[in-house]
Amino acid sequence: MAVKESPDLGVGMVGYSFMGAAHSQAWRTAPRFFDLPLHPRMRVVAGRDGAAAAAAAARLGWEGSATGWQTVVERDDVGLVDICTPGDTHAEIAVAALEAGKHVLCEKPLANSVAEAETMVAAAEAAARHGIVAMVGFTYRRVPAIRLARRLVAEGRLGTVRHVRAQYLQDWLSDEDTPLSWRLDKTKAGSGALGDIGAHVIDLAQYITGERITGVSGLLDTFVTERPVAAELSGLSGRGGPERGAVTVDDATAFLARMSGGGMGVFEATRYATGRKNAIRIEINGSAGSVAFDFEDMNVLHFHDATEDPVTAGFRRIVVTEPQHDYIASWWPAGHGLGYEHAFTHQVVDLLGAIADGTQPEPTFADGLGVQKVLEAVERSATTGSGWVPLA
Amino acid sequence: MAVKESPDLGVGMVGYSFMGAAHSQAWRTAPRFFDLPLHPRMRVVAGRDGAAAAAAAARLGWEGSATGWQTVVERDDVGLVDICTPGDTHAEIAVAALEAGKHVLCEKPLANSVAEAETMVAAAEAAARHGIVAMVGFTYRRVPAIRLARRLVAEGRLGTVRHVRAQYLQDWLSDEDTPLSWRLDKTKAGSGALGDIGAHVIDLAQYITGERITGVSGLLDTFVTERPVAAELSGLSGRGGPERGAVTVDDATAFLARMSGGGMGVFEATRYATGRKNAIRIEINGSAGSVAFDFEDMNVLHFHDATEDPVTAGFRRIVVTEPQHDYIASWWPAGHGLGYEHAFTHQVVDLLGAIADGTQPEPTFADGLGVQKVLEAVERSATTGSGWVPLA
Amino acid sequence: MAVKESPDLGVGMVGYSFMGAAHSQAWRTAPRFFDLPLHPRMRVVAGRDGAAAAAAAARLGWEGSATGWQTVVERDDVGLVDICTPGDTHAEIAVAALEAGKHVLCEKPLANSVAEAETMVAAAEAAARHGIVAMVGFTYRRVPAIRLARRLVAEGRLGTVRHVRAQYLQDWLSDEDTPLSWRLDKTKAGSGALGDIGAHVIDLAQYITGERITGVSGLLDTFVTERPVAAELSGLSGRGGPERGAVTVDDATAFLARMSGGGMGVFEATRYATGRKNAIRIEINGSAGSVAFDFEDMNVLHFHDATEDPVTAGFRRIVVTEPQHDYIASWWPAGHGLGYEHAFTHQVVDLLGAIADGTQPEPTFADGLGVQKVLEAVERSATTGSGWVPLA
Amino acid sequence: MAVKESPDLGVGMVGYSFMGAAHSQAWRTAPRFFDLPLHPRMRVVAGRDGAAAAAAAARLGWEGSATGWQTVVERDDVGLVDICTPGDTHAEIAVAALEAGKHVLCEKPLANSVAEAETMVAAAEAAARHGIVAMVGFTYRRVPAIRLARRLVAEGRLGTVRHVRAQYLQDWLSDEDTPLSWRLDKTKAGSGALGDIGAHVIDLAQYITGERITGVSGLLDTFVTERPVAAELSGLSGRGGPERGAVTVDDATAFLARMSGGGMGVFEATRYATGRKNAIRIEINGSAGSVAFDFEDMNVLHFHDATEDPVTAGFRRIVVTEPQHDYIASWWPAGHGLGYEHAFTHQVVDLLGAIADGTQPEPTFADGLGVQKVLEAVERSATTGSGWVPLA
Repeated sequence: MAVKESPDLGVGMVGYSFMGAAHSQAWRTAPRFFDLPLHPRMRVVAGRDGAAAAAAAARLGWEGSATGWQTVVERDDVGLVDICTPGDTHAEIAVAALEAGKHVLCEKPLANSVAEAETMVAAAEAAARHGIVAMVGFTYRRVPAIRLARRLVAEGRLGTVRHVRAQYLQDWLSDEDTPLSWRLDKTKAGSGALGDIGAHVIDLAQYITGERITGVSGLLDTFVTERPVAAELSGLSGRGGPERGAVTVDDATAFLARMSGGGMGVFEATRYATGRKNAIRIEINGSAGSVAFDFEDMNVLHFHDATEDPVTAGFRRIVVTEPQHDYIASWWPAGHGLGYEHAFTHQVVDLLGAIADGTQPEPTFADGLGVQKVLEAVERSATTGSGWVPLA
Repeated sequence: MAVKESPDLGVGMVGYSFMGAAHSQAWRTAPRFFDLPLHPRMRVVAGRDGAAAAAAAARLGWEGSATGWQTVVERDDVGLVDICTPGDTHAEIAVAALEAGKHVLCEKPLANSVAEAETMVAAAEAAARHGIVAMVGFTYRRVPAIRLARRLVAEGRLGTVRHVRAQYLQDWLSDEDTPLSWRLDKTKAGSGALGDIGAHVIDLAQYITGERITGVSGLLDTFVTERPVAAELSGLSGRGGPERGAVTVDDATAFLARMSGGGMGVFEATRYATGRKNAIRIEINGSAGSVAFDFEDMNVLHFHDATEDPVTAGFRRIVVTEPQHDYIASWWPAGHGLGYEHAFTHQVVDLLGAIADGTQPEPTFADGLGVQKVLEAVERSATTGSGWVPLA
Repeated sequence: MAVKESPDLGVGMVGYSFMGAAHSQAWRTAPRFFDLPLHPRMRVVAGRDGAAAAAAAARLGWEGSATGWQTVVERDDVGLVDICTPGDTHAEIAVAALEAGKHVLCEKPLANSVAEAETMVAAAEAAARHGIVAMVGFTYRRVPAIRLARRLVAEGRLGTVRHVRAQYLQDWLSDEDTPLSWRLDKTKAGSGALGDIGAHVIDLAQYITGERITGVSGLLDTFVTERPVAAELSGLSGRGGPERGAVTVDDATAFLARMSGGGMGVFEATRYATGRKNAIRIEINGSAGSVAFDFEDMNVLHFHDATEDPVTAGFRRIVVTEPQHDYIASWWPAGHGLGYEHAFTHQVVDLLGAIADGTQPEPTFADGLGVQKVLEAVERSATTGSGWVPLA
Repeated sequence: MAVKESPDLGVGMVGYSFMGAAHSQAWRTAPRFFDLPLHPRMRVVAGRDGAAAAAAAARLGWEGSATGWQTVVERDDVGLVDICTPGDTHAEIAVAALEAGKHVLCEKPLANSVAEAETMVAAAEAAARHGIVAMVGFTYRRVPAIRLARRLVAEGRLGTVRHVRAQYLQDWLSDEDTPLSWRLDKTKAGSGALGDIGAHVIDLAQYITGERITGVSGLLDTFVTERPVAAELSGLSGRGGPERGAVTVDDATAFLARMSGGGMGVFEATRYATGRKNAIRIEINGSAGSVAFDFEDMNVLHFHDATEDPVTAGFRRIVVTEPQHDYIASWWPAGHGLGYEHAFTHQVVDLLGAIADGTQPEPTFADGLGVQKVLEAVERSATTGSGWVPLA
């Protein structure tokens, strides 16, 4: 059995809330469904609050816990550091871990600024020379339907990409009484909808098309500038107290873009699209065909082949659960769909595979920096009358 | 029977191709399903080619035909001039008709420039003082599902509008061999996707929300700059000959907008969205609810009421074919859907009602001018690095 | 112009309510969009109530009117009789018209009993020997998406048909206060949901597959046995008075069937499917592919090709509005959908074409008799413990 | 932490293929997301092939393994026996386990015959007197959207149930070369599509409506009577060798039913619905509203409230991922959908809760027997000309 024969790789995780729970499920589940070349050992979970970290360890299945991220980086039995904290701490932890010779998986966005991201890329490049890898967690890349979209583009089934239409729509802030959290605090989160969810669709658009965004013109807005200070928080929701504080990030963003292949892009990210809970929608129109995806129906990819006989041409609703689709053979029979967290398991599978093979897993920190530059360009454009900001 | 007792109103139409056929069907059909206060008499259809006009009269059900639009404007038995020609002739014909004391229905976009549109508005205002009305043919306003969307916004069911997301997607130019036609000739059409189809979604966004666009930042592009000269044309399609000529209009446009109520808008119009034939998609997210529409499923409006119990809240798929919905009681029982041309019949019904009532039908020429100003602002922004162009 | 050069064919219609309005729209519209070999002249509309018939003539565009159907059959200037009355009068009128040498278009179901239908078939066969044609109005056959479904089966794209799943769902009786009408009276309508709407899906299933139903096992039920007597009626809806009367037909039916090719069928027809207004849903699964249709989205056919690479196989949402699709080239550009009444126009076009060609249009009266036999078999099974009733 | 403080409950599982993998994921995952009153300890997995059982233990996370089910029943540290074997062994194992004082979770269908199922119910009733519980694995009951459907019916939101329309559609046998497996062998599986997947929709229909099926009329068929003997098998697919053997079960079934509340039911189960991979579709129409579900979009329930203003009434697409929906608060934020295996985790959570509370978890063995009786009645009807078979 692969499970037994594979060498161990000790994993330490920093952060244990929403993302920490998702990553833990991935570390626990990957060895049960996939033949892994390295067997992850869930050594330690760490956080600022030691008691909470200990409770998280018990609940999430980690062998131990620690107060503060430093322990994780220092432990000899940890070979990989998994960073699930808010963006303001990514650079510090990732650089330290890489310098300590640990592989790193870092949640997105890579950092809260281009400068931080550049430091991280430098650290990753230095570490790479010693066989240490670094990966950023744009997890949605590993939804099987997204992988199929990329594959169709890569195989030329879409021809020249003319249009990218990408939206990430949520509505958890449309209620003006939703309380403040670190996600609404610029010092912690860097930005709001832009960096939290906009970053995902930027990455997906570039990943699926295999092209880069070469310039943007953008808008940012904060619709509700003051909110209750949270009395209690859980996941994305919570309950506010009587005190109120300022929202220091954007509530919503929209931007136009140019793709490196000559197509036009239209992007949107918001937490105010009432009725849309986690709608990541991407449509790409090429000269030979189109694909469309909506995370609200995540096991499905719509594909139109424009070269077909018009009599029977039409968007195919591909249920991406066949054994021939990426990752699926390890799960269930056709038609037995996957859920949100499965992409995290795929992320771990690919990361462990790359480490074992000695290759660099994608998305790299450089990919994360690329997204960061787009985020910064959108902010720059938005603060200068939506003027065009080119990207190198 | 209303049909018999209503006084006659003589109608003369200029142009007899795609739009002429649609308008003719409306003039013929309206009296058969609606109780009209005025009975339209289809007096004459005119065009540059007299033989073609005569053939069109026979086929489309007009009593007679004429060469050149002047006859239509001059005839005593014509009380209303219906302009179905390309945009470059709208101003001339409409102004002459209004000055001759004829009511005018003019296809969109109102004109090929703001200057022309302003002349037309002036003529319409002068004519209005004599009880003469002028209306521009943003026909999609009269799709029952669109009317319902507007009604829900007007009743406050959406609360404050945060997002407008509007696309008009076609794909008939994605084939690089689709031949040139007047729609690709700037001197005839004024602009390409922007004015032809973008104008519709601009109007719809403003109509449904009851708000104005207050500024834009835009992109325009022509993906295929040279095409075969048409050997034969029919509707939007045709067959090209060996000669090639320049495309002088935009193939696609995208622009960001601000709405007068503070919301963000994202607009797109293209003829290169492979697999999308006539997809007019509008989604509006407000603080209290959302609506979504796609013309590919034109009898349906999706509506989400964000004030409902989350346990049972969800986008309702409203099949807008109930007798309580606008226009429907005159057609078929519930569930027996309408098609593309029905909105033209509704347009005629509303126009005749307004003339009989002595009220001004909407959309007015001023509304058409408003759309024209948005078109011009998008072009201005697109040619100046997508910089923000405010609208008065 | 074909319109002018074609010889005239005088048409007389009996009945002028829901179906009469739909047929009139077809007679008026067909010559405006299609090149017809015969030009229909709308001579006369007749009914029991002479004043109502006269009003209908004015509203629906008939040259004259008459009291009673006999006049229509007798007039020399009428070459075709269009029967839009309840089923109890079909046989009498159709036989008289055929014997008088008139072509006949008769609404479905062909008759209220197999015996009546057999008489009609005999009359049609006799008339056929003199070049007179008879056609039954299973109009939905002429929805372009249904035509495409049949074509795909005929071309072998579905392989061997394994499953037919057909439902006709309405909900206008789910309100227990919906008043009585002739459709709920067995002496007029013959049966309820079974014959009114079940007949349509029986015909469609046989038409699309090209197979016959060879046996059935059925259920019939009347959920609400007493209803208000109608004070006022319009289309399918109305307002009841204080008096109550018995419902003498079925409210709903369901039956199992065997197809002549060896497949299984499951059929359902009801007026109690809350939220489904006119949902004609047909799905056919064959060894090589499947098709699925829902009239609530009538311009679309879903088609799955099971011989394709599983990586990209999926139900294609074919928007059946391309010029290559049946009937479409005469209407609008791609993506500009048709509505309920267009199939009536197609019916008239095909009927006139057949008369001009000297061929027998389909569906024939024999087809109508075939459906009638299925209806009778379902009733027989339902009254004998759902036992199997074979069909010759 | 609940995880630590809860008393342990030793679990032993028999069988380790498709269902064994799903159950193991549930036992592993439940304590990580839910606060459980009993902590499941995965003691042992057993099967006929000891080496395969040992491998499965390592892969699936069980502490140990055993050859043959007897060991599991006998071990002192096992308090619950989880039966994931083919149906022919259910009765023997379950009865032995219950007699040994072990709680039992048994995969569906409960048994291969009514007689066996009755023995199991008797054993369960005897065990219940000693506080031992028995549950049958109709897992789909625990999909949140199905729970919501049941809740809406129970709250009266649907009124009187008029129609149940239930289909379980797969297509893995439509390829005539798909090899034989135990699922096609009557001695192992009891029946084919009927018991394997039909059982699920029978249970769901009764569960959601809270009613019983009181009689049926059915059809069964085997379209492909001979298939290759399997050379290799995995999940539902596999590869056949040159030898061929007889299919001894049904490929497809369809049956009509009466519900105890007076409504009609139409059921279908097949493995030949090309393009439908695991489509469990249930629509229920009541006098006050309707619900519709399709497992291909498992996080969604469609609900129509027929008492609403017709202007805005329509099927709501409820994305059943709100914290107010059953089970969801323990998983992810709204919009982050669940997958196929999550219902297995919910099953374990509810089972452990019932054991801790001393209540009987549902579905009981008596529920399983009820389904078995429906299966038998359908078979009886199918072999006697589809005549009606009443159920007590």
